[in-house]
Amino acid sequence: MLTEVIKMLELMPILDNTKNTPLYVQLYEYIKQGIQNETIKPGMKLPSKRKLANHLGISQNTIQTAYEQLCAEGYTESNPRKGIFVINMEEDLFHFSTIETKLNKDKDKDKKKELEYIIDFNSGKIDLDYFPYSTWRKLTTQSLFSENSNLLSLGEPQGEKHLLEEISKYLFESRGVHCSADQIVIGAGTQFLLILLCMLIGKDYRYAIENPGFHRARNVFKDQGMDIQPISVDKDGICIEELKKSSANVVYVTPSHQFPYGMVMPISRRMDLLKWCTERDGFIIEDDYDSEFRYKGKPIPSLQGLDIIGNVIYMGTFSKSLIPSIRISYLVLPLTLMKKYKEHLKVYKQTVSQLHQDTLYRFMNEGHWSRHLNKMRTVYRKKHKTLLSSINKYMDENVEIIGDNSGLHILLKVKNGMSEKDLITAALKMKVKVYPTSIYYDKYENNRFPCIMLGFGGLTEIQIEEGIKILKNAWSI
Amino acid sequence: MLTEVIKMLELMPILDNTKNTPLYVQLYEYIKQGIQNETIKPGMKLPSKRKLANHLGISQNTIQTAYEQLCAEGYTESNPRKGIFVINMEEDLFHFSTIETKLNKDKDKDKKKELEYIIDFNSGKIDLDYFPYSTWRKLTTQSLFSENSNLLSLGEPQGEKHLLEEISKYLFESRGVHCSADQIVIGAGTQFLLILLCMLIGKDYRYAIENPGFHRARNVFKDQGMDIQPISVDKDGICIEELKKSSANVVYVTPSHQFPYGMVMPISRRMDLLKWCTERDGFIIEDDYDSEFRYKGKPIPSLQGLDIIGNVIYMGTFSKSLIPSIRISYLVLPLTLMKKYKEHLKVYKQTVSQLHQDTLYRFMNEGHWSRHLNKMRTVYRKKHKTLLSSINKYMDENVEIIGDNSGLHILLKVKNGMSEKDLITAALKMKVKVYPTSIYYDKYENNRFPCIMLGFGGLTEIQIEEGIKILKNAWSI
Repeated sequence: MLTEVIKMLELMPILDNTKNTPLYVQLYEYIKQGIQNETIKPGMKLPSKRKLANHLGISQNTIQTAYEQLCAEGYTESNPRKGIFVINMEEDLFHFSTIETKLNKDKDKDKKKELEYIIDFNSGKIDLDYFPYSTWRKLTTQSLFSENSNLLSLGEPQGEKHLLEEISKYLFESRGVHCSADQIVIGAGTQFLLILLCMLIGKDYRYAIENPGFHRARNVFKDQGMDIQPISVDKDGICIEELKKSSANVVYVTPSHQFPYGMVMPISRRMDLLKWCTERDGFIIEDDYDSEFRYKGKPIPSLQGLDIIGNVIYMGTFSKSLIPSIRISYLVLPLTLMKKYKEHLKVYKQTVSQLHQDTLYRFMNEGHWSRHLNKMRTVYRKKHKTLLSSINKYMDENVEIIGDNSGLHILLKVKNGMSEKDLITAALKMKVKVYPTSIYYDKYENNRFPCIMLGFGGLTEIQIEEGIKILKNAWSI
Repeated sequence: MLTEVIKMLELMPILDNTKNTPLYVQLYEYIKQGIQNETIKPGMKLPSKRKLANHLGISQNTIQTAYEQLCAEGYTESNPRKGIFVINMEEDLFHFSTIETKLNKDKDKDKKKELEYIIDFNSGKIDLDYFPYSTWRKLTTQSLFSENSNLLSLGEPQGEKHLLEEISKYLFESRGVHCSADQIVIGAGTQFLLILLCMLIGKDYRYAIENPGFHRARNVFKDQGMDIQPISVDKDGICIEELKKSSANVVYVTPSHQFPYGMVMPISRRMDLLKWCTERDGFIIEDDYDSEFRYKGKPIPSLQGLDIIGNVIYMGTFSKSLIPSIRISYLVLPLTLMKKYKEHLKVYKQTVSQLHQDTLYRFMNEGHWSRHLNKMRTVYRKKHKTLLSSINKYMDENVEIIGDNSGLHILLKVKNGMSEKDLITAALKMKVKVYPTSIYYDKYENNRFPCIMLGFGGLTEIQIEEGIKILKNAWSI
């Protein structure tokens, strides 16, 4: 049987060069809508890049990028040597497959079947559709082809100077962090940098962590054999009184967007925390993991920017704000610790690829980074708004939204009597994946109302609204 | 003043398409010889890629690659937007600049001046001139442009399955390592993987390390708070008797090429070591860091391949054999530890870039990896031979060569009465950089004859011979 190829005449998008929207986005939107409203039928083959490029009078690269987007979002799939085909969608409601389902394709078929059309409120997911892939590719290619033999060698333990300078500039301008490039150490992920920090600060200190708090950080401190003390969190962040009662002199905090509760630490609490730290002659580890995205009120500068003594260690990542796969996070060390780093830890080689360091440098230096952040702020603000309005529209007074000022997730306190486990299971039965918050507690008490974590970064607005509708039914609220 | 551009007619290499030598190598050799014998004068500008491509009737890519080689080796330098120029060489003897001097260009001018023409016997350097950069670039570009959205997401904690499968195949075929892909964990460098191992094995075990041994590994064990016991090394590797007297039940060894002494552990010692390990119910960490390069005798398979109980943890790296900048090393875990890894350490995210994982997969899968290894074996064998013959030719009986069967370095025991420090200083005064071995000892005794480490991977044969001549004079031997 011959596969039906979409006729050229059926693909006549009106592409407008003068618009702000790139041509490939216009083409992608056009085809996507065709697939959604079924003017383009399931199983049909898309025209070859070359033919369509000729037909529309645009470059093959533009077509390529649009086709890739469609494949990435699961509207089409590529069959090597045969071409690109519109997929057969089995259900009307779930016109999408997430990145996760793509990753899981290798796994056994049953599991695949089950996961294929899930709406996944994973807080670790970000919106990759808006990632400026063509720019990133262009710059990666430039890095690859530059006459810069550094790309082959190992490079500096701290990271390459030109990238560190861009990061330092960015942190000053957008987060009020005061540091020279020489105070920055980059590394392949926050966990590796926390391991370095443990080795740097050492075991003569006692560590406090937020409870609930970021489990991956708690894991590192535990695995590194640190003496850790969980400290409760109230509406303003970590409790200073409880901190004072503890014997800790190092504290790991997430003041810009407490993980997982989402509150922003107000200035008064910040000053108290700094005062506590000065008195103990200790350190504050400020993890600013998703501070780039803030939806209400004025931005609050980093703790590091308020610190005049040099007690604050600042850390951040490009995993949330750019892409996780390049594995670039960073530490900003106070001068005392930087000295110690240079004496003891330069023996540890840099873990980030030179190619990605160079590409990220170009990306920041040419202004793409700040443009990307601005764009993503708008994208996530819209999704955030959709999430809140959907909850308000579909759910009743048995739910309470927590932590809705910033970041890529919110918490939903559910008071219908179901346990956290029941809520998650009931949702999964209806193909919506939601996440527990109990794992973030040092010791979780089962008697409180469960809080469910809803990440929205990786979902479309339609998915978010659909997901909330389904959750409403699953939980009968 | 107008810069003199090399006249096209002066560049008439006879390029032979039918030769085994790639065209870009032929072109590069032609221009290099022109610069060396000064038919191409210092300060002259090379023709643009486009013009030369037209002139010679070959592709611009070929020209590009040849030009890059020349730049990488310091014969020419690129001046952005102006072109590529033949550099002014100040001294006749030192017609080269190493990668290191390029890296140091940013540093202060005096220091630069001093380092510019150094011959650096750094054992960490590898020969990057033979790195198949154009293939690597091509495959990287393929990865970048493939319709594989995985490249944007974080991926599996252990590493991507298709790459792990290639590594498993390679290890079986070339090192006799028995493992499934699912027993492999990749990570951004050996140090990070050793940290993971420390967390995995834990502090209930006591660790033995070779003395002398790899300092970066010792550092990790120390920084991870492990109880470490240094064990002497004799002509066959780590001393089993001393190991038996210790309370250790985990040992870190380099049996294929002891670091730094260079001996290969014979089969009898291997069997003794395995027996010791079984009796103690412990683990052997086998670091096979540069086993790919062996110059004498038959290859000896890995310890892991001899292990039937499951006590051996095998580790290796692509830093020595391919390039350090992609940051890919790997662990092969016995099943018991793999189970523990999956239970406790999957919380640690993968540290290697997805792009490089995919590119390396393509590189291995298409056969480039084994071709590259074969080529490098020949390259390093020649350098190794030049090093040994130069020492025999120029130096007297006051030196003794140690560890000359494999790897990218040898040791030179110097018996002229000078201390290790004096030997290094005297060499540096004559612009040759050599390295101590005292740092590899747990406690170094000053009264033995010093051993100087000579790495040859990053030097050309001419540099090696020149370096040995200079050392002869510097040390009066």
